[in-house]
Amino acid sequence: MTNKLVHARILISCKDRPGIVAKVSSILYELGANITESAQHSTDPFKGDFFMRIAFYLPEDKAEEALIQNTFEAIIKEWEMDFHYAPAHKKKRMAIFVSKEDHCLQEILWQHQSGALDGDIAMIVSNHPDHEKTAANLSIPYYHTPISKETRSQTEAMQLELIKNKTDFIVLARYMQILTPEFIDTYKQPIINIHHSFLPAFVGAKPYERAFDRGVKIIGATAHYVTSELDAGPIIEQDVQRIDHGYTVDAMKKVGRDIERQVLARAVHWHLEDRILRYGNKTIIFR
Amino acid sequence: MTNKLVHARILISCKDRPGIVAKVSSILYELGANITESAQHSTDPFKGDFFMRIAFYLPEDKAEEALIQNTFEAIIKEWEMDFHYAPAHKKKRMAIFVSKEDHCLQEILWQHQSGALDGDIAMIVSNHPDHEKTAANLSIPYYHTPISKETRSQTEAMQLELIKNKTDFIVLARYMQILTPEFIDTYKQPIINIHHSFLPAFVGAKPYERAFDRGVKIIGATAHYVTSELDAGPIIEQDVQRIDHGYTVDAMKKVGRDIERQVLARAVHWHLEDRILRYGNKTIIFR
Amino acid sequence: MTNKLVHARILISCKDRPGIVAKVSSILYELGANITESAQHSTDPFKGDFFMRIAFYLPEDKAEEALIQNTFEAIIKEWEMDFHYAPAHKKKRMAIFVSKEDHCLQEILWQHQSGALDGDIAMIVSNHPDHEKTAANLSIPYYHTPISKETRSQTEAMQLELIKNKTDFIVLARYMQILTPEFIDTYKQPIINIHHSFLPAFVGAKPYERAFDRGVKIIGATAHYVTSELDAGPIIEQDVQRIDHGYTVDAMKKVGRDIERQVLARAVHWHLEDRILRYGNKTIIFR
Amino acid sequence: MTNKLVHARILISCKDRPGIVAKVSSILYELGANITESAQHSTDPFKGDFFMRIAFYLPEDKAEEALIQNTFEAIIKEWEMDFHYAPAHKKKRMAIFVSKEDHCLQEILWQHQSGALDGDIAMIVSNHPDHEKTAANLSIPYYHTPISKETRSQTEAMQLELIKNKTDFIVLARYMQILTPEFIDTYKQPIINIHHSFLPAFVGAKPYERAFDRGVKIIGATAHYVTSELDAGPIIEQDVQRIDHGYTVDAMKKVGRDIERQVLARAVHWHLEDRILRYGNKTIIFR
Repeated sequence: MTNKLVHARILISCKDRPGIVAKVSSILYELGANITESAQHSTDPFKGDFFMRIAFYLPEDKAEEALIQNTFEAIIKEWEMDFHYAPAHKKKRMAIFVSKEDHCLQEILWQHQSGALDGDIAMIVSNHPDHEKTAANLSIPYYHTPISKETRSQTEAMQLELIKNKTDFIVLARYMQILTPEFIDTYKQPIINIHHSFLPAFVGAKPYERAFDRGVKIIGATAHYVTSELDAGPIIEQDVQRIDHGYTVDAMKKVGRDIERQVLARAVHWHLEDRILRYGNKTIIFR
Repeated sequence: MTNKLVHARILISCKDRPGIVAKVSSILYELGANITESAQHSTDPFKGDFFMRIAFYLPEDKAEEALIQNTFEAIIKEWEMDFHYAPAHKKKRMAIFVSKEDHCLQEILWQHQSGALDGDIAMIVSNHPDHEKTAANLSIPYYHTPISKETRSQTEAMQLELIKNKTDFIVLARYMQILTPEFIDTYKQPIINIHHSFLPAFVGAKPYERAFDRGVKIIGATAHYVTSELDAGPIIEQDVQRIDHGYTVDAMKKVGRDIERQVLARAVHWHLEDRILRYGNKTIIFR
Repeated sequence: MTNKLVHARILISCKDRPGIVAKVSSILYELGANITESAQHSTDPFKGDFFMRIAFYLPEDKAEEALIQNTFEAIIKEWEMDFHYAPAHKKKRMAIFVSKEDHCLQEILWQHQSGALDGDIAMIVSNHPDHEKTAANLSIPYYHTPISKETRSQTEAMQLELIKNKTDFIVLARYMQILTPEFIDTYKQPIINIHHSFLPAFVGAKPYERAFDRGVKIIGATAHYVTSELDAGPIIEQDVQRIDHGYTVDAMKKVGRDIERQVLARAVHWHLEDRILRYGNKTIIFR
Repeated sequence: MTNKLVHARILISCKDRPGIVAKVSSILYELGANITESAQHSTDPFKGDFFMRIAFYLPEDKAEEALIQNTFEAIIKEWEMDFHYAPAHKKKRMAIFVSKEDHCLQEILWQHQSGALDGDIAMIVSNHPDHEKTAANLSIPYYHTPISKETRSQTEAMQLELIKNKTDFIVLARYMQILTPEFIDTYKQPIINIHHSFLPAFVGAKPYERAFDRGVKIIGATAHYVTSELDAGPIIEQDVQRIDHGYTVDAMKKVGRDIERQVLARAVHWHLEDRILRYGNKTIIFR
């Protein structure tokens, strides 16, 4: 009887101290693991925090979640570790929240179809009916959940019901409604958002118009995890593109859409592959 | 007797209307000009503003400043044009203002030595003595003008005396003193500054420390013309570089220095080659 | 009766000589044109070649093709000009040729749907049936034209029949069949192709495998016009992305696909907006 | 008595097998090391090659080279490891070889002066006297070693004498002489070279002229280790910059110089910090 090999990852964070790598890799060695990727980061080896991602192959009979948890239990307790075990075959399920603009939605759908995304799209949720046909063509459940100031709490409750137990994270793919702190607290799982970014920043209404008036030479986008503090959660990824004086506000928005879909797609990729560790209001990305 | 050809540029801005290009190029044609570069920009062809840069060769006997001004006088008046004629052989003279950090100074000096800069370095002015030897090695006058809160107006008066009639613009190559509005008003000529930029912006003290705390993934720099409103003058050029969680504050500063010198050097190049037109608080760059 | 304004472009190339810009802009001025963009390039003002693109608004009754041609006739003859007039409302029609891989096809379809493409997709032609549903969803005619060594000339004849009078150019969006010189000669109109590019180049079979073996740090893509000399026609656009030693051949191919679709999309955009002038085996791009 | 901590790195390569990380990190743990950076790469966990770089602090009395070598001796033998121990305080010494063009030389000198280079410049060697004053200003020994076809072997012998025991690697900073295989074989230590790169490549004479004729849109540079096969050694770093049809051959060369100095500087940095592992004709870069 052959013992199939399964691929898995472990994410660890704790106070830095000598011997963590030695200990963790020894345990994996004893389990028969074959490490394929390993990255670590220390904010300060003497009094800082330590982060580690290890990807490896493991014999199937050693890869069971409870077994792994059990094996690491002692050091998790002793070193007060945040410990996350993720077998690669257990794909993460996302809900895509979207409003009218579809550039980010389309990018994620296309990446998924092309087989490049290491995860599943459980559903699309929108406050508009616009993308129903797109979803149907791909046999993805589509929930039209209209929302207004008056219905917000009611609609959010319904949305929470829809995603409960069916999703592992939410992607806000240009979802133009603000999620309430209650929604975020209740869902508990990660929520990834994308928005435009400029040098310098233009906080508030009509950012493209103001960036145009200021004559910026660069347009950017930032993907981040959502926290209750609006647009100020841990940054996952950023990118920019050059423009010049010839760009109208509309042309700038078009460039903005192109960067947004690329940046969001990268953030979703890394999240799916457990490459992101949150650290206070920052992220460690092990690419 | 041969008539030597000289290279020159004209910069024009005025209200947009039909026929400007036709008229300007006709006048140049009659002068015997051979156009080598021509770029124009209109904010709106029906009620907007028009900007143009033309570079051309002209027979020497037609290239004299007064003659050109005279030839264009009629349309300058009729169309209320801003008109700037710049023969290429009349090189612009810059004063480089610098404090302790020398990365921007060194870049400009090196570009100048390598023959890549279409301008002259008239002097280096610093509130520190640190770069005296560097200047001496290149036979560039170096003025050490210490400055403090108490001596500011006195020192600025002295600096203004030094640069008067000897310079056409100032490059603030990491000059860590704030120029007073009086200095800017008195000097009247362009002043180019460089400073760090982030997505989002971190205005105020210790920007790198705060960008580090926020976990930004991109560091940038912005070169701009100085106006009396601090760091908010017309943007000339911006650029960025990626960083990751592994960068300490010091490593971030090192990256920042690298972008700053590149961005400032490009801004100085374009200014020297009359590629920049100011338009309210923006710039039109004809590269 | 109001005279509607139409937007149009003129592309010109001829031997450089003084007065071209003056003459062309004067004629447009007399037609009542309002120039919105103008760019020119001279390979050498004294004995070189001259290229110009002008975009403008024109009263509708002056915008008729025959009238414009007539008005410019004299200087076209005198200066042996290549002259191309393109009213913006007359959108270019493309045929997209594609094989199995759909990343380039999907990008162009998405750009078209989002309204960003200034042109029409007349049909999709493929040697595979794979994209039939995609085309049907968007109501774009799909022609499945299987091809083999034996049927090549027959199939190409059929394809030529399909595209005749219905298309203004072809986009080879990862069409893995080599077009015969006969096809190219018969079609006569522009054909845009995309392919991978490396530093250094890996000509021939299995380029990704060889680039992997060589440890390249950069992957690129080149969009070019097709000439009978394979992959050596005028370059329209190139771009690259960084990789590192961690990229497998498959990961490299994924990056390659991402760059290819971006580079091809840009080339198609510029072609549709008449921003490209061919000059021997090179292109002048007026962005 | 306090035991000072010293910073050091270990580079390892061997056949991949389970347990390497566990073993290596255990040994370091027992030495009292505190790991600050750790990166590994496996070409294939089941039958591939394994590469690792670990940076750490070590008590001074455990950091001695012989002691480290001794401690690892058993696994070095058992696993047929390439093992390299580099205490950070033992700075690498470079000889810079340069001909007339000084852009790469100046960049490295400036980086060194600014304190950013983790290494020493032992000498500058040139077949021209041009940079003598530059070297003198910085108190760096300068050796003018004229070379011709007739004197090549004699001159190389002299150069080898100069660098022997005084340098750990050579940087060819635009040294326009081809090093003979004898030179390379005798010196044995690493030699880093920089040269232009294009998409596609233009091998042979006058590359910029040919790239200009081909209308390339991108100019690049490649830094690589020198092997006896000309310009085909392991690539360390590559980068590119966009150009357009407006660039003359001279302007292209200027862009090329700018990329060359940046790419070479990065390669030198990584080499100094032991971030590069050679693997056949490729490199693994642990940034």
